[in-house]
Amino acid sequence: MISIVSSTNRKNSITLQLARMYHGILTGKNAEAQIIDLSELPHDFVFSALYENKLKNQTFNTFVDKINQSEKFVFIVPEYNGSFPGVLKAFIDGLEFPSGFKNKKCALVGLSSGTQGASLAMSHLTDILNYLGMHVLAVKPRLANIDSIWQDDVLSDNRLYEMLHRQAQALIDF
Amino acid sequence: MISIVSSTNRKNSITLQLARMYHGILTGKNAEAQIIDLSELPHDFVFSALYENKLKNQTFNTFVDKINQSEKFVFIVPEYNGSFPGVLKAFIDGLEFPSGFKNKKCALVGLSSGTQGASLAMSHLTDILNYLGMHVLAVKPRLANIDSIWQDDVLSDNRLYEMLHRQAQALIDF
Amino acid sequence: MISIVSSTNRKNSITLQLARMYHGILTGKNAEAQIIDLSELPHDFVFSALYENKLKNQTFNTFVDKINQSEKFVFIVPEYNGSFPGVLKAFIDGLEFPSGFKNKKCALVGLSSGTQGASLAMSHLTDILNYLGMHVLAVKPRLANIDSIWQDDVLSDNRLYEMLHRQAQALIDF
Amino acid sequence: MISIVSSTNRKNSITLQLARMYHGILTGKNAEAQIIDLSELPHDFVFSALYENKLKNQTFNTFVDKINQSEKFVFIVPEYNGSFPGVLKAFIDGLEFPSGFKNKKCALVGLSSGTQGASLAMSHLTDILNYLGMHVLAVKPRLANIDSIWQDDVLSDNRLYEMLHRQAQALIDF
Repeated sequence: MISIVSSTNRKNSITLQLARMYHGILTGKNAEAQIIDLSELPHDFVFSALYENKLKNQTFNTFVDKINQSEKFVFIVPEYNGSFPGVLKAFIDGLEFPSGFKNKKCALVGLSSGTQGASLAMSHLTDILNYLGMHVLAVKPRLANIDSIWQDDVLSDNRLYEMLHRQAQALIDF
Repeated sequence: MISIVSSTNRKNSITLQLARMYHGILTGKNAEAQIIDLSELPHDFVFSALYENKLKNQTFNTFVDKINQSEKFVFIVPEYNGSFPGVLKAFIDGLEFPSGFKNKKCALVGLSSGTQGASLAMSHLTDILNYLGMHVLAVKPRLANIDSIWQDDVLSDNRLYEMLHRQAQALIDF
Repeated sequence: MISIVSSTNRKNSITLQLARMYHGILTGKNAEAQIIDLSELPHDFVFSALYENKLKNQTFNTFVDKINQSEKFVFIVPEYNGSFPGVLKAFIDGLEFPSGFKNKKCALVGLSSGTQGASLAMSHLTDILNYLGMHVLAVKPRLANIDSIWQDDVLSDNRLYEMLHRQAQALIDF
Repeated sequence: MISIVSSTNRKNSITLQLARMYHGILTGKNAEAQIIDLSELPHDFVFSALYENKLKNQTFNTFVDKINQSEKFVFIVPEYNGSFPGVLKAFIDGLEFPSGFKNKKCALVGLSSGTQGASLAMSHLTDILNYLGMHVLAVKPRLANIDSIWQDDVLSDNRLYEMLHRQAQALIDF
């Protein structure tokens, strides 16, 4: 099972739409895949599922279970304030230690409304996932200026679309 | 006004205790200082104060006001999962853009129960704060193995204690 | 004195041309400025000026002297292989410790033939300069796709040109 | 073939001694291994083997050949000025593009005389190697305070020694 993490809790995000596209790419290659949508997290999880409450929030635990049951991951990472959304790291802070990421493999995809394409965001996230023992696929596509290349659920930049396909295959083979 | 950000929402944290110590150091140098304690954030702020709800949560807005009214900042940064707490970035994601950090100055202090002393955490945070237009003081003390050097509200490592004093003075002069 | 470091040893580089443009911006604001051109380093300096040979290479020492006599710095940083040129770090590795960068201030400008604009390069360099005790100005313009915006010694992107002017003034005031 | 890169050109370095130890660990596991010692680079390679002289220096090309003929890599990375040695990046800047690192796998080991253990150095290097298309093993042992744990060619810290063995096995299996 490959879990695709839609790494923001913003409602109706392009991030979630891209996660759905990536789901289609993976299942088109006969890989089993599911989406983990952080917008469905309990609204108070940063207090009710961390520290002394770790693993005590049953709704949060269904997310933990999905992590534990996955062998591989894709993170769709929007750029917020020069890095990835804080909610993604807060979610990671609620996992057990060692987490269900240990000795597993993942791929990262960055997107931004600006020109950076979440470059620093993916660098920061790589540091964290490596720290947790998860191997990160080298190629990390950057979907910059997302509003001009993503319309009506279609990625109009063919070079990037093909890069995502190659990345998905590389993750399956990783 | 210098705001000292206790960068975790964990209750009764060493981070908050260090923030209080730093407050004493600053006021001892006749600087006006206050603590911004992220453990007092509304429990659902990552949903009720971000995106379409930005600036609509009155309790969260009192935090925004404190940021806007401060000229300088100190971030006391515990290491969680190889970086800083997700709640700190989620808090930043709830600020206006451009935020009340723009063209201001800050200092960072890292702490960890392990041996790294939040080195990567402070690197990531520097990237983000620079992106937001805030200048970061070069020296960033790392308080590693915090449980062995912080007891009964006293920092037993004199070299680090003096480094914090020099950093506080440098921030005042920055 | 503000030293502008042309951070590559490539001959006739756009980096050096941009350093000259920045020199004009600074002198136009009545700041005293000079260029430190890494293409003029002794060809064997990574062996003849480091480690047991530190400070023994007289030509290299003229570079060290320029660093020591400057109060502020601008680094014009081309992106090579996802970061800054190795020669820049090797140059830094040849300086004394503590170096002539300590307690001084600098600004960074990134350029790349690709779309990233040396974003990661400037993040890495900030870590290193902060480690050496030098404060880095928050705003770090990224001149991506440089070959399409720099022609005949003119920067055709007005937004970026104005950003460089504002950065230069901010460095003077830093 | 696994190449172990001794990532400094300093003569008689602990880095090289650790590379030899790692060579023994790998051959003890029946893996074929060789050391690439950057202290044997041509003294003027940053000028004679880069840019317009790329691949024109025959001695440098023997290093390029070793890279191209290796399937996996270990980088022994000493901390210099808060990152890795500039000579390592200058060496990378002399490789072809795409380089002989593309679609290959590697492991990183950090060492430092101070307490950081080359943490930021390995983060920076991971960014660069990922950019070049090389996958980096998640676990990156940090050998801090190296002068107190490495004596007479023996690593006295058993926990770290076992970690290196596990890492070597993980690289073979990667």
